[in-house]
Amino acid sequence: MTRTVAAPTRSTLADGREILFFALAAPPRIHEDRRDLPARAPGSPTELRFDTQLGDWVMMAPTRQERTYKPPRTMCPLCPDADGLSSEIPANGYDVAVFENRFPSLSSARAGSGFILPPPAGYGTAVDGYGRCEVVCFSSDHDGSFSKLTARHARLVIDAWTERTRDLLGRDGIEEVHCFENRGEEIGVTLSHPHGQIYAYPFLTHRTATVLTRARGHRHATGRNLFSDIIARETEEGERVIVRTEHVTAFVPFAARWPAEVHIYPNRHCHNLTELTDAEADDLARVYLTVLRAYDALYDCPLPYIASWHQYRSTGDERSNDTRSDSAATQSEGYLHAEMFSVRRSADKLKYLAGSESARDAFVTDKLPEQVATDLREAIARTGELL
Amino acid sequence: MTRTVAAPTRSTLADGREILFFALAAPPRIHEDRRDLPARAPGSPTELRFDTQLGDWVMMAPTRQERTYKPPRTMCPLCPDADGLSSEIPANGYDVAVFENRFPSLSSARAGSGFILPPPAGYGTAVDGYGRCEVVCFSSDHDGSFSKLTARHARLVIDAWTERTRDLLGRDGIEEVHCFENRGEEIGVTLSHPHGQIYAYPFLTHRTATVLTRARGHRHATGRNLFSDIIARETEEGERVIVRTEHVTAFVPFAARWPAEVHIYPNRHCHNLTELTDAEADDLARVYLTVLRAYDALYDCPLPYIASWHQYRSTGDERSNDTRSDSAATQSEGYLHAEMFSVRRSADKLKYLAGSESARDAFVTDKLPEQVATDLREAIARTGELL
Repeated sequence: MTRTVAAPTRSTLADGREILFFALAAPPRIHEDRRDLPARAPGSPTELRFDTQLGDWVMMAPTRQERTYKPPRTMCPLCPDADGLSSEIPANGYDVAVFENRFPSLSSARAGSGFILPPPAGYGTAVDGYGRCEVVCFSSDHDGSFSKLTARHARLVIDAWTERTRDLLGRDGIEEVHCFENRGEEIGVTLSHPHGQIYAYPFLTHRTATVLTRARGHRHATGRNLFSDIIARETEEGERVIVRTEHVTAFVPFAARWPAEVHIYPNRHCHNLTELTDAEADDLARVYLTVLRAYDALYDCPLPYIASWHQYRSTGDERSNDTRSDSAATQSEGYLHAEMFSVRRSADKLKYLAGSESARDAFVTDKLPEQVATDLREAIARTGELL
Repeated sequence: MTRTVAAPTRSTLADGREILFFALAAPPRIHEDRRDLPARAPGSPTELRFDTQLGDWVMMAPTRQERTYKPPRTMCPLCPDADGLSSEIPANGYDVAVFENRFPSLSSARAGSGFILPPPAGYGTAVDGYGRCEVVCFSSDHDGSFSKLTARHARLVIDAWTERTRDLLGRDGIEEVHCFENRGEEIGVTLSHPHGQIYAYPFLTHRTATVLTRARGHRHATGRNLFSDIIARETEEGERVIVRTEHVTAFVPFAARWPAEVHIYPNRHCHNLTELTDAEADDLARVYLTVLRAYDALYDCPLPYIASWHQYRSTGDERSNDTRSDSAATQSEGYLHAEMFSVRRSADKLKYLAGSESARDAFVTDKLPEQVATDLREAIARTGELL
């Protein structure tokens, strides 16, 4: 039975942006945001341009050049601030807080207005950067990290992602909701306070469209779901499985392209976080934490990583505006999962995406997935599984 | 009339790898490679694994963990070495040298044996990493850079790329030949001596397959070539054009995704470097140099960049083993061009591929292409055009 996520406490920031608080127990005391922020322009500050060569949209966000860059600790915009003067979070503290990004790549100015991205009209197609970018603060502890959260707190983050997914996927013109965390200066994180982001795209991303096309082809050829088959094969072989519980399986995929790549799936086919039961969400929180703790135990320093939640609509959606093919409109073959990976390829070296990867999407990896799985299982043995 | 490229002088390194020398005038004096290198194993040291989720191949090259990493200047493997004891290039000097990579992502062990990559047989498909990886040294000057070459020397590099393209595209089982340069530690370059690389893939890369599918769709819808239309539109609008000569056009594309992105096309539809006339190759060398010099004039330091040459077969090839769609077999809509871009987004900041880019291929850029074009034209005005 699908679970119900408690409604967040809502407030508004000085420039009209929304902020939401998710609490483990009592909600925080929310104060007035007294900053003198410039009003947001009514239109979108960003633009989507259609790339006719590759068939996808590029987000042009010039205001992001001014985004906050490695501020001193006392100026952290993600710490709670009861004075309402120095941060994005005017509260005496919080467990999980979510707010609209002040420097968005996609803007919600037209949300709810029935907006649908128009089909591209050849070279030179540009439209307003409709959509929504949110920041998800995992904890008020500036020096914390996701891996140090309790299982209950990690579950609260999953519930916050779930509520945001439900809300955003329900909005006109939103095609895909992407919850992710970038962690570490090595991948360009400019704020060290533990946080992630949510991008609600008005288009199906190229990656997602490719995967859905593959999954439909697999259904056509075999009558089965592509992802279910992948989980079955990885479980059967076992060599690359990191953790498997009643409800969740984590493994290094057979053709991993990134260092320390791990995929986590619920054992039952769900399309997105809103379909998880309580027991599944609990397992997912524990397994996700287990992998993150193994990450930090791999080398002597916290591992830089990207953790990305792949989500799909539960059913085909007639309103879809995917530009690649008509058949891409149906997302029903999609299977909720997390894909996590690092840019650290050894204790003292980083993986860079150079010519083959950046210019051709052709990946070279220098550690076999079986070895990565062995190393991660040993790291879990050292840190202790949560389960 | 297609030009003829002078045949290189050939030799063999201590472990049996080929080395080729291209000369502006007299060929260099080639010595014996007297290093005690381990013999190469007969099979491929690398493996290709098929990713059923994305439908492409991942190159697994564990031996690359041991590749040469930022050696001291005196140990540079790309400097000429008349003693034949300390570098990959046993010669008294050279203009352009090309040799097989000692730590390849794809290996040529089976070259010429009639090898064709088999179609993937579901999850768990792995085959030998057939193909070829070459290193192209642009000059014997350790402290030089491509941008400092003379136009005549740059043309010699283009001729070397051309000869390698002709040879490699003609081999059994090679689907795509990718000449590229990674420049700068910021993108992971581990050898500072000016050099580039060539990857001869046994498959069509995902990026290339996507572009060809788009181009065939465009032909079907309009009767015209996609790239010719792009060049015509950019030329007509002019706002993003950087340089245009009789034979070559360079512009920042309308939907650029990377900082300082520039595309360079011959004005006449060619599929790959072997189809260029002498005059076109000369123009291409000059325009390419002009853009690289503008790159280094943008900020106070040499710009880290990736420069990638997109090439296609001249005609449809029945032997094609592209795994994505039957129609992808025909490459005739492909149009030779260079795509160049940087990871530097401002004088003091780098662009990182984080969650949206790395996990979804959905790019955010924070500088409008028109501004990039203006900045590059100003940089050209400061450095002086070559033409």
